Order: sequence, then structure tokens, then C-alpha cells
Amino acid sequence: MTHAPSLPAALRLVRVVGTGLLGTSMALAWREQGVRVGLDDQSPSARRLAEDYGAGVAWSDSLGSPDLVVVAVPPDVTATVVAQELDRFPEAIVIDVASVKGAIRRDLDGLGVDMARYIGTHPMAGRERGGAMAARVDLFTGRPWVLCPSETTPSAVVEWVEGIVRAFGATVSRMSVDDHDAAVAAVSHVPQVISSAMAAQLEDVSPPALSLAGQGVRDVTRIAASDSGLWLQILTQNAPAVKGMVGELIADLTALHDALGHLDEPGSRRLIAEFLARGQSGVGKLPGKHGLAKRFASLVVVIDDRPGQLASLLADVGSLNVNVEDMVLEHSPGAEVGFVELWVTPDVVHQLGEDLVERGWRIAGERA
Amino acid sequence: MTHAPSLPAALRLVRVVGTGLLGTSMALAWREQGVRVGLDDQSPSARRLAEDYGAGVAWSDSLGSPDLVVVAVPPDVTATVVAQELDRFPEAIVIDVASVKGAIRRDLDGLGVDMARYIGTHPMAGRERGGAMAARVDLFTGRPWVLCPSETTPSAVVEWVEGIVRAFGATVSRMSVDDHDAAVAAVSHVPQVISSAMAAQLEDVSPPALSLAGQGVRDVTRIAASDSGLWLQILTQNAPAVKGMVGELIADLTALHDALGHLDEPGSRRLIAEFLARGQSGVGKLPGKHGLAKRFASLVVVIDDRPGQLASLLADVGSLNVNVEDMVLEHSPGAEVGFVELWVTPDVVHQLGEDLVERGWRIAGERA
Repeated sequence: MTHAPSLPAALRLVRVVGTGLLGTSMALAWREQGVRVGLDDQSPSARRLAEDYGAGVAWSDSLGSPDLVVVAVPPDVTATVVAQELDRFPEAIVIDVASVKGAIRRDLDGLGVDMARYIGTHPMAGRERGGAMAARVDLFTGRPWVLCPSETTPSAVVEWVEGIVRAFGATVSRMSVDDHDAAVAAVSHVPQVISSAMAAQLEDVSPPALSLAGQGVRDVTRIAASDSGLWLQILTQNAPAVKGMVGELIADLTALHDALGHLDEPGSRRLIAEFLARGQSGVGKLPGKHGLAKRFASLVVVIDDRPGQLASLLADVGSLNVNVEDMVLEHSPGAEVGFVELWVTPDVVHQLGEDLVERGWRIAGERA
Repeated sequence: MTHAPSLPAALRLVRVVGTGLLGTSMALAWREQGVRVGLDDQSPSARRLAEDYGAGVAWSDSLGSPDLVVVAVPPDVTATVVAQELDRFPEAIVIDVASVKGAIRRDLDGLGVDMARYIGTHPMAGRERGGAMAARVDLFTGRPWVLCPSETTPSAVVEWVEGIVRAFGATVSRMSVDDHDAAVAAVSHVPQVISSAMAAQLEDVSPPALSLAGQGVRDVTRIAASDSGLWLQILTQNAPAVKGMVGELIADLTALHDALGHLDEPGSRRLIAEFLARGQSGVGKLPGKHGLAKRFASLVVVIDDRPGQLASLLADVGSLNVNVEDMVLEHSPGAEVGFVELWVTPDVVHQLGEDLVERGWRIAGERA
């Protein structure tokens, strides 16, 4: 057991353990803020690469006592390293950045770690891949960053860490580890499973059939291309939450499957209709500009597949003083054209279509 | 039985039955080519709307004998209308444009219809929704259009129809009805089912959890917002093919579910790894520019959420002589910024990043 630490108003020295994408990006952001950063990594060459990018200097105890230690190592060794760091630096706050929190917390509880100086966190910064080379000072700008403090973590410590994360431009929220793991299962891990499952079905589809693929199947399967080694770790770490929701999905799909096999039995068509309606309702719950179809209208514009077409189209749209809420690019395999779906407010969509036609653009569709 | 028809070199008169999105768009394209078009619709007001858009005149037998009849009515009445039209116009070629072909063919076989003058076709033109108001002369440009001629349809008739469809700028292919229905199940109908199933799971997710949603779940669930009435018809019409593939998906998901529940049993982790690897391989089979991650690199650029930012970014990219292969817009709920992921060739990605930073853009990620 250690005493509650003194919290400096401003960070002076940070120790970053693990100089991958996340660790190095945080280090770069601190360097820009004038904070001293000491870097450590099991791989000296990975550490030296981060030094080369200006993320800080190699850690040495002569740097002093760190105010903060960031553990940014693979999920399966995170708990061990957190415990070691808490032990080694009895004045420091320690955070980790692994994307699944419950398993780590349970391991730390098993190790008898004092939660007064530790907070599990999860910056949801894009792809979570690439090493120091892919690191960016703006990696966390506008991204969610979840803090999962234990009930025994002093609120002063939570607020102190929150301030540090907010200084990266991240959007901070707090959750219990279980709520966090259920949330990322729902909005990230199960969608990955579903996308992979759909994409796996395409393996045995013939090329003529695949040539009919449109934007829908491309959207559904896009993330199936993600790093499978990383996802194996994530899915196994968050197995209980992922398993629960996959089980519910299987139940829904099985009911649909049975209804499709017995279309003339009473209730079958209703079940299919309700299945589709629940999906419509569910996608409408996603916050932000999406559920676009409900609030925005769109135009599909044909563009030639060559440099500058997209910029030229958007310049025309901009000069008409129309704001593009969202935009989806579609490619047409085997054709020399592509499509741009422009989402705009419903009040301007029709006039925009007419103005673009006047400027020589071809409109292949309008969704009011 | 009727004799094989004489095929005019150029279309003179077309009869369009059903003045929805597809029928009216075809009519508009023919009008632009100088072909005479007679319009018919069960709803006189729908027909009059198409007339107002310049798609042709109300059908009357005084127009003459049509060279071609297009049946563009809802799938569940298509077979009946096709049979009626073949009967009523014994010199005309008749095509339909419904998105599922096997059920219609079986109904026509049941009605004892002669296949010499009929071809089932499927233009894959975007959303298949909206009426005459959404019709566009360019709706079919660069889109796949599948012809499913019967084995007894004379090849001269198939080629004649193929020429007509090609004149719309569509990419024509030929398939048997069963191959067609299996193909659209795989690349369209099952992805719709999967997207709806995933989206349905979001219904009961809490708002704080949903606030963590990133681009992945948005992509996977985007098409779940589609018209559920239309999809109920499509899924029931193509029930056998959809059911087959959904069954395979359930089997894969069930194996994954079991492995997640028994992580420490031999083979469990391997099963999960292979599940993910199959997904990666499957998405790589999609033709065109996708499987992007394999051949292209990307930059994630931070943009402020206001008009003109996107155009200004693309103008900068264009002035650097870089072609954007694909582009994904991401919104960050609760933040004043958005992200644009620009896909470009790997040889230019790094320099582009440096040039954009020099012009004041913030880069939040790079995928080499």
C-alpha cells in the first residue's frame, strides 16, 4: 500500500513504456507541450526509432521521478507491466491504454495492486496499428478517450488524468470496466466479427457474381480487412462481452433463417419485417450526423475516374454555398466512371442538382 | 406459341409499364435518344408525373405496335404482367427489371409462357427506390445490368436487348436465373441481412456506449437504414438463396461463439484466428479499387466541421498533383472536427502528408 500521491499542477516528467503508435503519439504531443518524456521499450530499436521522431529521450532513472507513467504495451502483458511500474515508481500515477479493460483489472486485483495511483484508460484513436512511424501529435484530436477508474481511485487523481487527456483534444468519458467492455463489444468488436463473417462468405463466390458488388457489401465488409493478429488479441481479451452479443445475433439470424424456410407459415413475413425494422431503428440510434437518410438528402454525381474530378466537383458545390454533410465515393468496377454521393440538407438538394447539371455534371440519382 | 419476332435495327416505339424510378429513368434515356415512349401505370397520377418529367406520352394502342415492352412493376406482380404483355403484343420483345429472377421465371414457366420473346433482366442501379421524381437519364451509367435469358431465347433477341441496355452506359453480363439469384444473395441480400442484424443489436445499447461508435460500426450498419418494405419483398422473393448463405453464416458464428466460451480448450484460438483470416481473404476478393488496404496507403486529415473545408483540402491535394483513389469521411460526435481518410498510392503518401502539414493541415494518422 502506498500513500496518495502529490499531483503537480503541470506535468513535468512522463515515462512512456512501449513506444508503439499510441505511446509515441502521446509522447510527441507532450513534447510539443514542453513536457519532458523518457521512453522505454522492450525493443531498443523501437525505442530509438521513437527518439528519432523526437518523442523524447531514452529513459534513465537519472531523469528524476516521473509524475506519470504510461503503459502502452500489448494487452496480454499490460497488467504485469502496470504492477511493476506502480512498484518501481511509488510517487507516480500510472495509466494504461489497452482497448479491453476488465481482464486487466481482474489481473491487477489478483496481484493485489493498490488502485489509488492507477487508472485504466482507452483512447479510441483510429486503427491502433503501426509503430512509432505512424505516430502523430494529432492522433487523439476529437477522438473518444474512456477512463475506467476503480471505485477506490481518489477523484483528484481521476480529474488530474482527465485534464491530461483533454489537453490532447480528446473527448473524455468515464465508465466502469464492465460498461466499457460491453460498449466496445457493441460498437467495435461485434461489428468486426460480423464484418469478418460476411466477408468470409465471399471467399467462394465466383468472380462474375462478385463483379455485381455495389457499395453496400463494400461498406459491410470494409473492416474485415483489419489486422487479424490484433483482432485475435482483442476478441480473446473481451471474450465474455463479445460472446454474449454474438449469441443474441445468432438467435436473431436463426429466427430469420427459419422464417425464410417457412414463408407461408403464419408470422413468418411479420418476423422478417420486424427484423428489418429493428435494424432501421438500431442504426438510427448512432449519434452524430449518421442515420443520415433520416435527416439529409443526397445526390449521386457521376465523375470520370481521373485526378482532380473530385476536387473540381467539390469546388463547384462550395461555390454554390452548399455544405456537404457527408460524402461517399463509389467505384464502378469495369467502368471508367465513379459515383460521389453528396449528402446535403433536404432544402437545397434539388436546386443543387439543377445547378450541377447546368455546370455540366451528370446526376445519377437523388434521394430526397 | 408465337413466331420469333422481327428485330428492328433501331428502337422506334417502347412501351413502359410501371413509371417508378427504373421505368421512368429508362424512358427518359430513350426520349433523349429520340425513341418514342408510351407510358402505362396502374396509377394514373404516377403515370402523369412521369409524363410531366418528359418521359413520354400516355400509352394508347393508336401509337402503334411496340418493339419493346419494359415491365417495371413490383416483383410480386411482375410474372403476371409479363405474361399479359406477351399476350397482348405478339410482335414485341418483353423484358422485366425485377431484382430477383428465379421466382419470376418459375411463375412464367407455370403459366406456360413462351420464352422466345422474353428476357428477365436486372439493372443494379443504386437504391431501387423513389418514384418518377427520382428518375435520372444517367441512372444506369456505369452500373451492372444482368440479363438472364432462358436457354430457349434466340441469341439474336439476347443480343438485341444487350445492345439496348449497353446504350444506357450500363455494364452488361449474362447469367442463369439461379446464378443471378445466388450472386445477388451474396453481394447484396445477405449483406443487408447482416447489417440489419448488427444494427438491431444497437437498439438496446446505452447512449454513452453509442457515443464511442467509430467509422467501423457506421460502415457495417449503414445499409440497415434502407427501405424495409422493399427489402421484405426482396428477401421473400429470394428466400432460398438468402437462407442458404445465412445458414452458413450462422454455422460460422456459432463456431466462433463456442470458441469464445472455451478459450483455453485446444484449437479455440486457432479457430478465431482462422475466422478472421477468412474474412480478410474474402474482402480481398471484391473487385475494383477496394481491398484498398492491400494496394493503397492513406492519410487521416483533421478538418473543421464547416462549409468549404473538404473542397479546400481536395483543392490542395489536387494542386499537389495527387489522385485520390478513395476517400472516407468520419464524423466525431461531440467534437467540432471531422476526419477525412484519403487513399492514395503508397509512393506519394508520405510526401503528401508533409506537404499538407506545410499548408497548415493537421494529420491524425498515416497508414503506409
